[in-house]
Amino acid sequence: MPPTTIFDIPTPSLILDRAKLVRNIQRMADAARSKNVALRPHLKTAKSIDVARLAMEGQAGGVAVSTLKEAEYFASHGIMDIQYAVCILPDQLERVASIQQQGADLTLITDSVAVTRAICERGKELGANFLVQAELDCGEGRSGVFPDSKELIEIARLAHEASHARFAGVMTHAGHSYQCRSIAEIEKVAEVERSTAVRAAERIRDHGIPCATVSIGSTPTALHARSLDGVTEVRPGVYMFGDMFQAQINSCGVDDLAVSVITEVCSHHASLDRLLINAGALALSKDRSTENMPNDVGFGLVTDARGQLLKHKMKVARVYQEHGQVPLVEGVSYEELPVGTRLRVYPNHVCMTAAMYNHYHLVDSDKGDGCEVIATWPRVNGW
Amino acid sequence: MPPTTIFDIPTPSLILDRAKLVRNIQRMADAARSKNVALRPHLKTAKSIDVARLAMEGQAGGVAVSTLKEAEYFASHGIMDIQYAVCILPDQLERVASIQQQGADLTLITDSVAVTRAICERGKELGANFLVQAELDCGEGRSGVFPDSKELIEIARLAHEASHARFAGVMTHAGHSYQCRSIAEIEKVAEVERSTAVRAAERIRDHGIPCATVSIGSTPTALHARSLDGVTEVRPGVYMFGDMFQAQINSCGVDDLAVSVITEVCSHHASLDRLLINAGALALSKDRSTENMPNDVGFGLVTDARGQLLKHKMKVARVYQEHGQVPLVEGVSYEELPVGTRLRVYPNHVCMTAAMYNHYHLVDSDKGDGCEVIATWPRVNGW
Repeated sequence: MPPTTIFDIPTPSLILDRAKLVRNIQRMADAARSKNVALRPHLKTAKSIDVARLAMEGQAGGVAVSTLKEAEYFASHGIMDIQYAVCILPDQLERVASIQQQGADLTLITDSVAVTRAICERGKELGANFLVQAELDCGEGRSGVFPDSKELIEIARLAHEASHARFAGVMTHAGHSYQCRSIAEIEKVAEVERSTAVRAAERIRDHGIPCATVSIGSTPTALHARSLDGVTEVRPGVYMFGDMFQAQINSCGVDDLAVSVITEVCSHHASLDRLLINAGALALSKDRSTENMPNDVGFGLVTDARGQLLKHKMKVARVYQEHGQVPLVEGVSYEELPVGTRLRVYPNHVCMTAAMYNHYHLVDSDKGDGCEVIATWPRVNGW
Repeated sequence: MPPTTIFDIPTPSLILDRAKLVRNIQRMADAARSKNVALRPHLKTAKSIDVARLAMEGQAGGVAVSTLKEAEYFASHGIMDIQYAVCILPDQLERVASIQQQGADLTLITDSVAVTRAICERGKELGANFLVQAELDCGEGRSGVFPDSKELIEIARLAHEASHARFAGVMTHAGHSYQCRSIAEIEKVAEVERSTAVRAAERIRDHGIPCATVSIGSTPTALHARSLDGVTEVRPGVYMFGDMFQAQINSCGVDDLAVSVITEVCSHHASLDRLLINAGALALSKDRSTENMPNDVGFGLVTDARGQLLKHKMKVARVYQEHGQVPLVEGVSYEELPVGTRLRVYPNHVCMTAAMYNHYHLVDSDKGDGCEVIATWPRVNGW
């Protein structure tokens, strides 16, 4: 039987290019190594053990996750050092204890003294030993305590002194690096991220409490920080794939994007200069993060089936539940793109788009014509 | 063991209120009956056999779907009359033939003469008998041929005369009814939808071709059309659940919304007047369809865990991948909503939000305190 190609699989489907994935992973590994920090890949974007294995190659072995379902899944695949990088809730602790009973060290984060107390108490009740990190706000204003707050010391002390918990360090996330439009701006945010985490760790140590881990991370800051002195690890995630938004904030180039959606032209409107593809709001997500960027691609950049730019730039201007509307641009006619033509769409925000699919169709643009589907890799969605 | 309640299940989870669902279904069934048309529930929103069974009660037995995966799923549950209401692609015909071999009549739609030709040819090659409807544009400008076009007659004739296809009628969808802001406006769009479909059917019949089905449908037009003379069926979908957008275009009231997301307060920011819930972009979707509406609820309206409005209106103002940011409003303090407090979020666009979950947790607000989870109903996502 001939090999399955991207021209055979149902549309819409999610395509992952192994060659680009590996290069993206290598670039971040080099960046972390050059700054003398461990790389803890954040698997919130990939949600795949196969991607995790590539991202962990040559690294210390720790990962970060964004859901307990991911934690359960990666623990079941033998990953033993997992940071659950979303503030823990007391009613999740039983599930955490179960994951630990599988043998995984699952580190929890919190910015709440009350939750830390609950962790210490439930640890005792459940016979568990919970690992607690304090989350810091380094300027994003999303979650986290401030490095100079009394709450920080209180969280550290409670966890440190508890019989069934341990204080494992501090972590912060400069999500506001996504607002930066130049590398110089990212460097500034990265330095605040670094100094916030280091300052917090020093204060904790000054109180006689060990603070082993000093964890920071976003793809832009992990790549572009000038110094990570005092930091022990970075936790970027989206770098593995990249997307149209990341390509505009200096995280990668459009040529580096490893994930796209394969789709087909499904209708030419009788009289209007636009065509429909069978990838809409569900296949692409409603993310519009390129809306105010220099290269606004609507709901995604349209390329040919192989992922090569078309001679004229086309984009998904509007989405319906199952349809994407692509305006024809000057110099392109319906005859060039008949119904059934396969196209690819590079999404704005790959975390959102990938979440609509249960698996990746793996291709490798370095092998042959790059169209063969060489594997199918599952994803773990949901909570 | 005590019954499982909405206070026990993991967050975020999708809640479906059976009492409201049944009332919404009843309202649409009454509307269809009063206009002497069959109701063909569109299952693109619900994607659930359990919901389908309720929606089909007392109806003719036909449904509409938005993906072939839904078609396969509902056929496997014994539904025999399925309209795949998205323009069919030639490379999907083998899958269509397989579904038909399971015994289901799967009606296809197209607005393309070339695709109709492919359907007739592939029907012969596959030994199938494809049912073809012509899709009409009644003003939305998305897909469909115009009722006075020569393409319409060509599609009908090709399917009618083919050895392995049958022409099954015309269908149209007034998706632009979502732009209407008054019932009077909806009535006008509904009348154009009706007259477009009826005009197309008459032209086809004038050419000596039978046109059995005259199908229209959107929730607003199906509810508010003043007359559906000449129409044989309506295909609304979102009416079963409703959402914050539909509640503002006269499809339902906020009290009718049957689907919500249960979530928990997971962080109070140290110094800012906002809290975080553990329902973000993945749990709610990035749909912003209430953005320009009188009642803009951000990414969703926040209520208490039972679905009752809070004394002050709160909304999800911003979403991150796993967090929603809810600004505190005057008169509410953190003490009233400590970390771990369960809340519900009523989404803007329920089709998008529900698609992030693999199942519904069923409650019934007419029974007891409405908090017991009486069943778990699976959904069929993907393509």
